[in-house]
Amino acid sequence: MIDSTKGVTFPRGYRAAGVYCGIKKAGLSDLALIVSDREASVAGVFTQNRVRAAPVHWSQQVVAGGRARAIVVNSGNANCLTGEEGERDVQRMAEAVAQRLQVSSTEIVVASTGVIGVPLPMEKVLAGIEAAFRALQAGDDRAAAEAILTTDTHPKRASLEFPTSKGSVRIGGIAKGAGMIAPQMATMLAFLTTDAAIPAPTLQHCLSTAVDRTFNCITVDGDTSTNDMVILLANGASGVTIGEAELPLFQETLTQVCEALAKRIVRDGEGATRFVVIRVEEAADEGSARRVGKTIAESLLVKTAIHGADPNWGRILAAAGRSGVPIKPEQLCLSIQNLLVFEKGRPLPIAGAELADLLLQDQVEITLRLGMGSAKATIWTCDLSAEYVRINSAYRT
Amino acid sequence: MIDSTKGVTFPRGYRAAGVYCGIKKAGLSDLALIVSDREASVAGVFTQNRVRAAPVHWSQQVVAGGRARAIVVNSGNANCLTGEEGERDVQRMAEAVAQRLQVSSTEIVVASTGVIGVPLPMEKVLAGIEAAFRALQAGDDRAAAEAILTTDTHPKRASLEFPTSKGSVRIGGIAKGAGMIAPQMATMLAFLTTDAAIPAPTLQHCLSTAVDRTFNCITVDGDTSTNDMVILLANGASGVTIGEAELPLFQETLTQVCEALAKRIVRDGEGATRFVVIRVEEAADEGSARRVGKTIAESLLVKTAIHGADPNWGRILAAAGRSGVPIKPEQLCLSIQNLLVFEKGRPLPIAGAELADLLLQDQVEITLRLGMGSAKATIWTCDLSAEYVRINSAYRT
Repeated sequence: MIDSTKGVTFPRGYRAAGVYCGIKKAGLSDLALIVSDREASVAGVFTQNRVRAAPVHWSQQVVAGGRARAIVVNSGNANCLTGEEGERDVQRMAEAVAQRLQVSSTEIVVASTGVIGVPLPMEKVLAGIEAAFRALQAGDDRAAAEAILTTDTHPKRASLEFPTSKGSVRIGGIAKGAGMIAPQMATMLAFLTTDAAIPAPTLQHCLSTAVDRTFNCITVDGDTSTNDMVILLANGASGVTIGEAELPLFQETLTQVCEALAKRIVRDGEGATRFVVIRVEEAADEGSARRVGKTIAESLLVKTAIHGADPNWGRILAAAGRSGVPIKPEQLCLSIQNLLVFEKGRPLPIAGAELADLLLQDQVEITLRLGMGSAKATIWTCDLSAEYVRINSAYRT
Repeated sequence: MIDSTKGVTFPRGYRAAGVYCGIKKAGLSDLALIVSDREASVAGVFTQNRVRAAPVHWSQQVVAGGRARAIVVNSGNANCLTGEEGERDVQRMAEAVAQRLQVSSTEIVVASTGVIGVPLPMEKVLAGIEAAFRALQAGDDRAAAEAILTTDTHPKRASLEFPTSKGSVRIGGIAKGAGMIAPQMATMLAFLTTDAAIPAPTLQHCLSTAVDRTFNCITVDGDTSTNDMVILLANGASGVTIGEAELPLFQETLTQVCEALAKRIVRDGEGATRFVVIRVEEAADEGSARRVGKTIAESLLVKTAIHGADPNWGRILAAAGRSGVPIKPEQLCLSIQNLLVFEKGRPLPIAGAELADLLLQDQVEITLRLGMGSAKATIWTCDLSAEYVRINSAYRT
């Protein structure tokens, strides 16, 4: 099963480090480095926001090239909407890492997360890269997992190993989330590694498939970040080349690692006190199932009702009704915590107190059947608390 | 100028009442009645939510008929997702009012607002209708304006009078809002009256135009109610028939009354502490200007930053970037409180402390120029406070 104590250095041939370089206040680590001991295939999925940070532009080019040696990440500053200076700064970060590794800067993935519109303090960042190289470790990626965080309360790691006839293959990853989480074909920051050998086009297909079913099915607050990216390196250090025979298991294992990280991002959503699973079934197609699920997941009224364990289930159907999918109340069935509360146009006589008790559980499960077909989707989200407002009212100042 | 001490009884030939019938707790009034002394033309705009309350279905039929004599409204219960029983209950409400007025029940508009999925306590409602008839007054509509409220903190009235060559015409209205406010071609509850004589088709055109520029430009929390409706009665008691000559002034005055009520709904948004005006200019078309404005207005990160007077302007551009409109950062100009903070791809060196001070004002003005054309739109919204979460975590229980 998923091991959440190991991440990107669980696969063979990777080292990682996390250091404090002075972007954040209070000595919290803010610069992470992940290095593959050999050239790796690289795949990536990026934010669909029209406003994209300089490191997103840069790393899209790296992924287009298909080969990478390292990932450098700073937290505390997004290097977004920073003009030409921002583009130059990301190039300088890549070059500093490339020089140490004696490779081309076009093989260095760069990522940033934090406040938007403020220039990076480059002297600190470059000194941080030097410090990170001195701190690189093969066996421990906790420091790297910590250094990419912003408002997250704890680091997020996940890894799995699977056997093949040629030997075992390992996949591991680290992620950060917490706020501005509403992926659009991409998501927050997540960095994954594998020691499988797999060509970049296949790797990209596997990553896109996994992201679509995991990171793209979570939402915290409906805001899509300008800096989202998921990167996967495959360096072949296991000696196992993924062919036709191994591909299904590789895909499944990768998806499991992504799902574990995605769920952990939701559980650690800003101010979150409850984990919410929204299943939309009997939809005409998967896209409309997902649209209904996301509209419910992003409804402030649904999120606050769940926070207060308020058995106000009408808000769930009201949100579904404005999703743009042509649902019909007389065909809907709604269950909360496996208790049927609404069936084909009729509310069922349930005890509000009983439902309120069920809603006090850590995990809330909502199932909505649309009666329009056989497609389905699952969306994961969290509740909305006053703590979310507190965190985001004073994030920068 | 707008008179906010008079509403639906300011135009001649209308009486109104507001009473307590026992739907709400604590003796707060919960049933309103507005009666025209003569048959009136009627126009209406209704929620586009696929889940619509029984009174919405009913009142759409009344508006289709073009004639109405009265509006009956209960608060504290939405009569939504209440099955066939809910459809019967709305008919009984209409019939009770029609019987007292000796008219057809098809001339009675019915509206409800409050919790979803709970049957109406019909004995209390019918007794309330009797009490409301006894309380009907020609000169005072404050009780009616109070009886339609839910989480609003105060009643909302607005009225205007304009001269014509045939005499003066009056327009007045009452509204409720507070939460679940994100109109889609319709909105919350608002009831308007005029003593002009104007045929139903023209009246409907005037109302739709006014709603599109006012109620449809506000948002509190991005949730669209199942019970939204705006109703306008025109009873001709002024003796003035609106012809070609009077139509522009009638339209303008009606729009002003709607705008006054719409803005008051935003100012009284659940937990709101700041009124926010978002102007999107230089858009390719009005639809995309509105889409960018609404995405900014509904971003939790923008709303919480404004609540905390946090000069985190990057969130505004990040929200614009995920609106679906193909904006380009290098063409954007962003001003906050008339201070230019971002100009065509470059952040300007502004003092965060200075901007934070400006954000402490009651009203926050954001202007975003897209550099894509000459269309524009204005959206009104409010900030998001911990109080919003408190109100909606325990609305029902």
